[in-house]
Amino acid sequence: MELIEKHRSHRGYQEVYKHFSLTTNCNMNFAVYSPDESKDCPLLYFLSGITCTEQNFIQKSGFQKFASENQIAVVVPDTSPRGEDIPDNENYKLGCGASFYLNATQDPWSKNYKMYDYITKDLPNLISNNFQFSKSKVGIFGHSMGGGGAIQCALKNDLYKTVSAFSPICSLHKTEFAKEMFDNYLGNNHDQLDLYDPITLIKKSNKKFENIKIDVGLKDEFLKDLYIDDFISECNAVGQNLIINKHEGYDHGYYFINSFIKDHISYHSTILKNI
Amino acid sequence: MELIEKHRSHRGYQEVYKHFSLTTNCNMNFAVYSPDESKDCPLLYFLSGITCTEQNFIQKSGFQKFASENQIAVVVPDTSPRGEDIPDNENYKLGCGASFYLNATQDPWSKNYKMYDYITKDLPNLISNNFQFSKSKVGIFGHSMGGGGAIQCALKNDLYKTVSAFSPICSLHKTEFAKEMFDNYLGNNHDQLDLYDPITLIKKSNKKFENIKIDVGLKDEFLKDLYIDDFISECNAVGQNLIINKHEGYDHGYYFINSFIKDHISYHSTILKNI
Repeated sequence: MELIEKHRSHRGYQEVYKHFSLTTNCNMNFAVYSPDESKDCPLLYFLSGITCTEQNFIQKSGFQKFASENQIAVVVPDTSPRGEDIPDNENYKLGCGASFYLNATQDPWSKNYKMYDYITKDLPNLISNNFQFSKSKVGIFGHSMGGGGAIQCALKNDLYKTVSAFSPICSLHKTEFAKEMFDNYLGNNHDQLDLYDPITLIKKSNKKFENIKIDVGLKDEFLKDLYIDDFISECNAVGQNLIINKHEGYDHGYYFINSFIKDHISYHSTILKNI
Repeated sequence: MELIEKHRSHRGYQEVYKHFSLTTNCNMNFAVYSPDESKDCPLLYFLSGITCTEQNFIQKSGFQKFASENQIAVVVPDTSPRGEDIPDNENYKLGCGASFYLNATQDPWSKNYKMYDYITKDLPNLISNNFQFSKSKVGIFGHSMGGGGAIQCALKNDLYKTVSAFSPICSLHKTEFAKEMFDNYLGNNHDQLDLYDPITLIKKSNKKFENIKIDVGLKDEFLKDLYIDDFISECNAVGQNLIINKHEGYDHGYYFINSFIKDHISYHSTILKNI
């Protein structure tokens, strides 16, 4: 694990590391924000959207002020494997930047695109072995592809005690974003897709959260392709409580995230500190 | 004036415009944040550092939250003329991104690199004619090259009632950053350089501010090349009050600005609202 960036930010430090992952078979970057009193502090994972690296959220969301005030650590992985030998595609919805946080089953993707295992096993082990954050007070959140990613990871893994999302892609079966991914990573296998589809998982899951918090802008240019209302219906049907805020005038980008990041950090922090 | 970006951000809007400037003889971009009640609200200009465009500050500083809370507008110009026909240089300290907010006197730079007139005359006229912000409650601040730029503009123009800076370049005569600029834009003319040099201007100026607020990080990788202590000495000599904060551990970049942007917005807002 190699430190490649370190900046004092608010009362803590924003760092970026590089490490070789045996899961994705390549070097991976991830960012860590440590508040000034980080021993046993709660920990949040943030999963970013298509085209992002670990840099977008740490540069644009402004989360550090609130992570610092709430004394909570935040880990931000990259959105996919990357590098000269890593399969990629000109379509931004496929390849680098568009892993969908799943395990690809098809060649040439399956050698590296194991981001589900990376996010839920490899990275938590690495963090646990190298940082002193709490191992039990752990939450996950994300944006767009990463909002759906946070929900699917949270529903299947006891590690995560809280979950929230900005503008999440809730239906991998219906969204236009997932078509190329589905054909290429999963060979058009619907059973495979079900493993990562928030709406399918909420129907099947025995795990319930106190709430799932979702914020979305009503001027989101991709609103119809997120299927948030379908997700709400399924949650209502199975008795999963939600905190849904639909915000007039906000779009899909980081100005929206920056406007409501304080609420998400506070939401996780309040619950995790009382575990 | 053409609107090229508009995003709801906190309770206001972050916009970016393009217009043709007769001063720089090219199209210029600038960003405007308008709080939700922008009629007659105070207005701040922010001048960015070398290599930046109007985008860096609006994406990374997180100022919008505090501009929104304080009901203050913020205009962020680009750092130089730009375009296919605009003289440039491979050295990042010269040409596009490195105007030093002065009027170049030498060919080929003098046709376009008239950023001092652009910032202090052209842009304020444009803003005054197209927005309803206060025309008297106006302040200026900036970072690095733009921190020095804010100070020199403020000392020479009654328009600006408040001034502050992050990590400003205070001596154009001494700093390594200005060598190529001095040779090329100003033909090695020290009298010309004096017109834009914060330390020279503070010695000569009859204009006094209640305070000049300066924040700098003590791990700033360019600290020795900023000559802030020289500026402090000159201010003390002429009786210009300062609010200087030197911050342990912070560097020159946007994580530093983001950490203290709230204080700068509050500083200007408090004074400007009471004018």
